[in-house]
Amino acid sequence: MTAAGSVGADPGTTWYGRAAAAFTALDGGVCAVPGVVAGAVAAGLKPSGSPDVAVVDAGRVVDVAVVQTTNQVRAAPVRVTARHAADGRARAVVLNAGNANACTGPEGEQVAVDTATRAAELLGCVAEDVLVCSTGVIGQPMTPDRDRLLAGVADAIAGADHTGGDAAARAVMTTDTVPKVVAVRVDDGEASCVVGGFAKGAGMIDPAMATMLCVVATDAPVPARILRPLVRQAVDDTFGRISVDGCQSTNDAVVVLATGGAERAPGVAAFVEGLTAVLGELAEAIVRDGEGASRLVRLHVTGAKSEPDAAALGRAVANSALVRTAFAGGDPNWGRILAAMGASDVPFDPDRVEVRFGPITVCRFGVGASFDPGQAAAVLAQPEIDVRIGLGLGGADATTLTCDLTHDYVTINAEYTT
Amino acid sequence: MTAAGSVGADPGTTWYGRAAAAFTALDGGVCAVPGVVAGAVAAGLKPSGSPDVAVVDAGRVVDVAVVQTTNQVRAAPVRVTARHAADGRARAVVLNAGNANACTGPEGEQVAVDTATRAAELLGCVAEDVLVCSTGVIGQPMTPDRDRLLAGVADAIAGADHTGGDAAARAVMTTDTVPKVVAVRVDDGEASCVVGGFAKGAGMIDPAMATMLCVVATDAPVPARILRPLVRQAVDDTFGRISVDGCQSTNDAVVVLATGGAERAPGVAAFVEGLTAVLGELAEAIVRDGEGASRLVRLHVTGAKSEPDAAALGRAVANSALVRTAFAGGDPNWGRILAAMGASDVPFDPDRVEVRFGPITVCRFGVGASFDPGQAAAVLAQPEIDVRIGLGLGGADATTLTCDLTHDYVTINAEYTT
Repeated sequence: MTAAGSVGADPGTTWYGRAAAAFTALDGGVCAVPGVVAGAVAAGLKPSGSPDVAVVDAGRVVDVAVVQTTNQVRAAPVRVTARHAADGRARAVVLNAGNANACTGPEGEQVAVDTATRAAELLGCVAEDVLVCSTGVIGQPMTPDRDRLLAGVADAIAGADHTGGDAAARAVMTTDTVPKVVAVRVDDGEASCVVGGFAKGAGMIDPAMATMLCVVATDAPVPARILRPLVRQAVDDTFGRISVDGCQSTNDAVVVLATGGAERAPGVAAFVEGLTAVLGELAEAIVRDGEGASRLVRLHVTGAKSEPDAAALGRAVANSALVRTAFAGGDPNWGRILAAMGASDVPFDPDRVEVRFGPITVCRFGVGASFDPGQAAAVLAQPEIDVRIGLGLGGADATTLTCDLTHDYVTINAEYTT
Repeated sequence: MTAAGSVGADPGTTWYGRAAAAFTALDGGVCAVPGVVAGAVAAGLKPSGSPDVAVVDAGRVVDVAVVQTTNQVRAAPVRVTARHAADGRARAVVLNAGNANACTGPEGEQVAVDTATRAAELLGCVAEDVLVCSTGVIGQPMTPDRDRLLAGVADAIAGADHTGGDAAARAVMTTDTVPKVVAVRVDDGEASCVVGGFAKGAGMIDPAMATMLCVVATDAPVPARILRPLVRQAVDDTFGRISVDGCQSTNDAVVVLATGGAERAPGVAAFVEGLTAVLGELAEAIVRDGEGASRLVRLHVTGAKSEPDAAALGRAVANSALVRTAFAGGDPNWGRILAAMGASDVPFDPDRVEVRFGPITVCRFGVGASFDPGQAAAVLAQPEIDVRIGLGLGGADATTLTCDLTHDYVTINAEYTT
């Protein structure tokens, strides 16, 4: 159970919005949802020998919504999952790390289809009810890994049970240093449901669909045609507002399975709050564990004409290598923030901009404010930094999460060889 | 004289295009143009005590074209220069390093105006005939530097002569490690002209106007209304196709002074080739000296439907932190190149893409080609790497220059404090 404590602690203060419903943090991740089981094994795809294949099984065919990468280069499992989820129904998700199965041609797609087929045979459903996700190096042939992968699928299914949520989260880790697992019970006073899941991230994290992989389940009865727009919006509000390096992946997928098992589910507003809370906590966990990150930076853009404007400016700042190296160095170099905003296509008035690092105003009306460099250095030395960027143009706000750009990011990505 | 040797050596092989005219490399930079003088002094704006104020004087009011940053946050000298160059006429350019005079409010703009006024008094022209450029930290008040700057302007003008081109180039360096100076004589067989200048770069280098500062002079007689579109195109073809970090500056300016002093100037085609060659060599010198760079990477995108498409895909690859860290590590991770292209909004067919590192084909029809990892490592260990990305869609090409993203980039930018 990671990070969910803050959900229960004070939902009004989360970065992804205010919550009216009551949350209770639960253990078990995706398996906190009754009837959902998971299993994970080491199939030999990761050179380290760590677990690398996971299966999440809803126990029967349920409603599903999937949001995938908008990258033009779509990995084989992304294409197969798009087809299999087109009818809004699925039973299980098979995931592997160690090979992204991207840029692997028809042979790679065949392995993805074979994976779904093998899982379906063992689960007793049709291949179209199994979704597939992969993460790892792009462009590595998948065929040599086929037999190991299929054997791993069988073992993971054989070992799947209601304790497997954390193990599944661990199996999909690549450069992640910690598993990312969240589950909550959402209660609106009348009824309740459970939402739980896991994600992996670390690098290639961009707001235009910002996760490598995320699987969430809920027992709320939500038909796929309703689930789809709700998941789309929740992803936009959470994974859509984080950036580690502005690099968009070929393999991104968020899968949400709705089992409908809850006896009395809360209203749609409470369900959306619970879903957004789980995705938001997982998104924050991804940034905290961003490749090489030593600091979490919350960029609050306020006073925008619209929320999309505020989010776009936050994204421009989050994607700036110069801003993020300044945070690595604890440098109150607010000029780089204005330069990054100015390079975006969102119009604003530089002469109205105010920038605060924590409680310290460093820029007012677009020019430097006098501040104590020692105090600023103390704020910027913290592991979490709140940056407020006031535009003075309107009433819309958005928060974007990013992390600093450190030597370790370069080390990790210069040495992550094919 | 930097890098110009390659212009003369074989103009047909330059990265910015093929040349029909004959070039001869000259010494002297901007002062290779008859009648142009330059001077530089240490005015105390750089903490290091190095030269930091430069003046380039055409000797009389001449035609001028200026291309400036498109950043919404425009430094005070950018705004002042835009006004002063609006009539297409100027005599001199005053430049300073050590303070960007950006985000400095009306007080900063007053210092920029005062700078032009002081120079004009000493040169015997009106303030509107003096252009101003600044580079350094953004958001640092300019008023405390005013008196030092104005004294430096007087000293630089007093010391300006026809040997000052290299010194002017040195004075505008910030994180640059070498001055960037180029001059050529262009000869089309009938007549000839000289084009020479200098630039500074290093960081905040993005294709959407990719230089901090560049001053070029020519003795070709080209009226401002013709010079403007020619300079715009030459900038698009050179500074518009380099990237160090994808970060766009608040202070970018390319100033081209046309004295008209040449007795018999070559045709417009030869002049444009000479101008493009000088800007192209300066642009390449900026990338070679990119912050922390250990390698120059030439990204040749071929087989595109249009040249803008080819340039946009090259830009997407050049701006990818994951691609550039892979080059730092000598990693033939071509999958990151496809992922970066796929995240752009230029449509292409991943199944037709071919990628070559030097002579080694690493990807064909969008999937990995078998290659000798040792050979690839040897290619990627070179200080210059040619990457060819074939799209198989049409006949248009474009070359974009970038450099690798190293630990030193992080060190430089984490420690470059306000």
